[in-house]
Amino acid sequence: MSLLDQVQGPADLRRMSPAELTDLAQELRDFLIESCSVTGGHIGAGLGVVELTIALHAAFNTPDDKLVWDVGHQGYPHKVLTGRKDRMHTLRQEGGLSGFLKRTESEYDTFGAGHAATSISAALGMAAARDIKGQEHKVVAIIGDGSLGSGLAYEALNNAGHSDRDFVVILNDNEMSIAPNVGAMHKYLTGVQRNPIYNRLRSKIGDIVDHAPAPFKDAGALLRRWEESVKAFLTPGVLFEELGFRYFGPINGHDIPQLLETFKAVREFKGPRLVHVITTKGKGFPAGEHGEKWHALPPGHDPKTGKQLKAAAGNPNYTAVYGKALSELMEEYEHVIAITAAMPSGTGTGVIAKNHPKRFFDVGIAEGHGVTFAAGMATEGIKPLVTIYSTFLQRGYDNIVHDVAIQSLPVMFCMDRAGLVGEDGETHAGLYDIAYMLAVPNMVVTAPKDGTELAALLRSGIEHEAGPFCVRYPRDLSPDVVPHAKEIPAVPHATWEVLRKGEEIAILAVGTMVQESLKAAEALAADGLPVTVVNCRYLKPYDATTLNALLATHQQLLVVEEGTVINGFGAFMASVVSALDPNVRVQTHGVPDRIVYAASRAKQLAQVGLDAAGIADRVRAMHGTGALAG
Amino acid sequence: MSLLDQVQGPADLRRMSPAELTDLAQELRDFLIESCSVTGGHIGAGLGVVELTIALHAAFNTPDDKLVWDVGHQGYPHKVLTGRKDRMHTLRQEGGLSGFLKRTESEYDTFGAGHAATSISAALGMAAARDIKGQEHKVVAIIGDGSLGSGLAYEALNNAGHSDRDFVVILNDNEMSIAPNVGAMHKYLTGVQRNPIYNRLRSKIGDIVDHAPAPFKDAGALLRRWEESVKAFLTPGVLFEELGFRYFGPINGHDIPQLLETFKAVREFKGPRLVHVITTKGKGFPAGEHGEKWHALPPGHDPKTGKQLKAAAGNPNYTAVYGKALSELMEEYEHVIAITAAMPSGTGTGVIAKNHPKRFFDVGIAEGHGVTFAAGMATEGIKPLVTIYSTFLQRGYDNIVHDVAIQSLPVMFCMDRAGLVGEDGETHAGLYDIAYMLAVPNMVVTAPKDGTELAALLRSGIEHEAGPFCVRYPRDLSPDVVPHAKEIPAVPHATWEVLRKGEEIAILAVGTMVQESLKAAEALAADGLPVTVVNCRYLKPYDATTLNALLATHQQLLVVEEGTVINGFGAFMASVVSALDPNVRVQTHGVPDRIVYAASRAKQLAQVGLDAAGIADRVRAMHGTGALAG
Repeated sequence: MSLLDQVQGPADLRRMSPAELTDLAQELRDFLIESCSVTGGHIGAGLGVVELTIALHAAFNTPDDKLVWDVGHQGYPHKVLTGRKDRMHTLRQEGGLSGFLKRTESEYDTFGAGHAATSISAALGMAAARDIKGQEHKVVAIIGDGSLGSGLAYEALNNAGHSDRDFVVILNDNEMSIAPNVGAMHKYLTGVQRNPIYNRLRSKIGDIVDHAPAPFKDAGALLRRWEESVKAFLTPGVLFEELGFRYFGPINGHDIPQLLETFKAVREFKGPRLVHVITTKGKGFPAGEHGEKWHALPPGHDPKTGKQLKAAAGNPNYTAVYGKALSELMEEYEHVIAITAAMPSGTGTGVIAKNHPKRFFDVGIAEGHGVTFAAGMATEGIKPLVTIYSTFLQRGYDNIVHDVAIQSLPVMFCMDRAGLVGEDGETHAGLYDIAYMLAVPNMVVTAPKDGTELAALLRSGIEHEAGPFCVRYPRDLSPDVVPHAKEIPAVPHATWEVLRKGEEIAILAVGTMVQESLKAAEALAADGLPVTVVNCRYLKPYDATTLNALLATHQQLLVVEEGTVINGFGAFMASVVSALDPNVRVQTHGVPDRIVYAASRAKQLAQVGLDAAGIADRVRAMHGTGALAG
Repeated sequence: MSLLDQVQGPADLRRMSPAELTDLAQELRDFLIESCSVTGGHIGAGLGVVELTIALHAAFNTPDDKLVWDVGHQGYPHKVLTGRKDRMHTLRQEGGLSGFLKRTESEYDTFGAGHAATSISAALGMAAARDIKGQEHKVVAIIGDGSLGSGLAYEALNNAGHSDRDFVVILNDNEMSIAPNVGAMHKYLTGVQRNPIYNRLRSKIGDIVDHAPAPFKDAGALLRRWEESVKAFLTPGVLFEELGFRYFGPINGHDIPQLLETFKAVREFKGPRLVHVITTKGKGFPAGEHGEKWHALPPGHDPKTGKQLKAAAGNPNYTAVYGKALSELMEEYEHVIAITAAMPSGTGTGVIAKNHPKRFFDVGIAEGHGVTFAAGMATEGIKPLVTIYSTFLQRGYDNIVHDVAIQSLPVMFCMDRAGLVGEDGETHAGLYDIAYMLAVPNMVVTAPKDGTELAALLRSGIEHEAGPFCVRYPRDLSPDVVPHAKEIPAVPHATWEVLRKGEEIAILAVGTMVQESLKAAEALAADGLPVTVVNCRYLKPYDATTLNALLATHQQLLVVEEGTVINGFGAFMASVVSALDPNVRVQTHGVPDRIVYAASRAKQLAQVGLDAAGIADRVRAMHGTGALAG
């Protein structure tokens, strides 16, 4: 029986010797590589923290002590060690284990997360709750160096520092988050690692003090004070010490005996303390230990070589279409620049970094700053395209309202991953952008039906100087082949496109739902129920001319959108139509007002009726009951 | 002619001697105290930066050089010196000068703001735009120490640090923002100020190096290197230096010659640099130089004594009702705690700090952290009431969705200043919370009709364990006298209250609009048009029973709410009713989809038709045209 098979839970780790735990680490790493070669997933982060995870569970008394993992990308070893090994083959699948941590999945998952930098705040809250309740357990946040660029992490450090709160932060420093790290904090940490002098000197002082015989106790105190005074240029953690944390490290995050010793000692201290652990992301992964590419793997690759087994599908995805079109448009429009928040590859802007390096800005995991930074640029006649996933842009909502919209600055927002996102599940779904953007004054809200229209709307947004403009597009393949952007004219402002003419019922389709609605209309026509299909590419301002024409010739409208049904475009249209024409009924068909959990994107869409079959069913139901009384 | 009268713009300052500028400072201070004694306003911050503002405009070449003031609370001296002295009597009034900076008001107002900590991001954006365009001017952000607790400021510092960007940050350190400062950064800055050794030593080194004769040039370089190595424990700015800023200071912010000399020198350097200026908030204000109370003054106080001339109105405001009720409820519910983000007085939670100090948490200007901190607490069975102005809670939107709602944690959000806020204008208006909260799954959204119902909804929210709960209330007086909270039962879940029965038309009123709708109904009844009035205190989940009863007996519904008309409760109801009963028409009556500028709150409400007269007019218009065809 392997060591790994002996681990039913963290208590089993506490019975093993450091040597056994080191062997266990190798078994766990092999298991993860094998397991993720089938399921796919964010394997790099997990491989980097195998030893760290073992040492934390061995040194701390989980689940009474609380471990709070940031993001959860790195949670796979934690899952295996906390009784979920047998379900790892279900990772990221419908009804299976989440790709992140999840409170409903295990008592060891103290806080779920998919967005970066929440762990210190959440753990500090748990520590405060513990103190109110008079309990004694420990609370530990484990955060990556990339997340330290986020203001949220800083707010939490600032709130915890210099407090008396018994509270531990583990800084998992792998010198990269997803993309290579940017920003001053990163350079600071790199400098820290390369400064070897402090460690010898500091531990020397510690030795002298700890072993001073009783009569020299005063000298010990004196030395401690001297230590304090020279600390600033001897220790690497001066920045954290200045923020009120007691700093330990940096230590080798792959050395289990050193990790155990440190964590056991740190556990017994009081007050805010930070342990700086150096790890290698992707440690042990056969295809190499560094690289953004395998931050997340699709299912199906060779565990020996790390190479992908299946070929990718035919059409490029919207992300790639976006990057290519923007790069082409930047040749035409010299005042356009691109901003990403730590996701050059995820947002397709890597190509901008390559083709237009002086007009590309990666601000790090700092969405709020990215938006206000763009607003500052816009005041000077530069046109920024802020490219952030729909779900992450929630972090910049105040900046959108307060810095951009109120001043009516021409910033463009390109929201990738809008709608359901498949296996990444609920934390990454972009379901609220239609609702939160429609509510913002001066904001133009758009969604393309395909890749060519995305390029066209990019041109429209670039040319729109009167205020902010946003465009949303999905985590999906583009249904069309997209020509060079210079061949694609802008979409005329506030216009819709009637794609199919029918009777009685018109479908107002948004973005991804245009193709599905056309398919539904096809099926309905075959049943003798011809419906109109409209591509509502401008959500706000809407196309009043086309809407009025539709109202004059139809009895019912069905608004279909891949976003929350509460206060999406459907609700907006319902209120508009009610004011315009009481004789036309508006029905809404969107994502229901509940959490939609991980499954393939196609399955998620089918579940909530946002595919051709679901749309057709809805139209049939309307047809039966939709007639107005009178 | 006084010196102040000779200043038509900053160019005039550059012609004056340091001695004249010092005299000008006194004149400017006297003018501000006199002027604000009539108009009211945020005088404390402005008085603290009189000399700083003069020195900045004298040392930098504004408006070519860009000054970006954080928040704009401290913008009054800047307004006076940039040609707006003659309009200062119109401050914060309809059509008058804004209480903050505003791009449309002056070319010297490079970036408008009412929320804290945006200045560094915006200024960095301007500097990046300048560099893209190949221009040479300087960009200067001026930020208060309180704002440094905000993650947004840190994100910007982190992004700028270690870059080569020619970029200046002035840290205006007055040891308080609005309330006494909290957090590690504050303690750090305080420590810096109290460390006198660095200054003498460092300037000594500088002297030696600067005056070294040519043959000793190498020794100079050596000394510079040594300076670098001891910097860490001699200089106060080590934290900023570690983040990649060249640090200067701290300097006396009321000493014009010292300020001028420093700014002129700093202007000529390159790269990111930070000047630490110590000022006294409220400097020269007769009623004393410190205190949260006069952070903002209402109009009408004695310029000699600073005492208020007019008595305050009769009923307590909602803020006070909230604080008192919560304090009382915390005696009943031991697991309830209160969180504020740097606004103990503004949110009425100062009384909690006094009565329940161990259950009160001021996290500083850190709304995002405050929300996730609350989520962490909620995982441990503590019930946090997060009390943040509606407009500032936009900073925590992602935390609400991702950390609270997805995990369905029972955190309660108490949103003060929801709706129109009068003189503070568009940056402080809380118009989007209904839209952004309704879209969040699991969220209960409520609004009380008066102070007693606010207390009742607090109880409802505290007792709601299934997930998050929010309540919104205005910047206004409570219309009622509120008994002790123990005498006020909870509002039954998801219930409305029919307050007046009429015919044909029912008004669905939200929060503040309930009283106005009742008054409108009174007037309409007198005209022979009896309408129903419903208090929709639960927006989501809504009261389906009452709604169905209304649908059975009315032809039209008018939803009246003090929030954006796009995707507010009205749009939600329009979509719901359209699905339930096509024969009933829903009209929406809210704040129009545009920016509403500063005026008194009563005037703002009247402008947008959200008073009894406006509601009655709307109902009359509906009555004429509302009949359904058929």
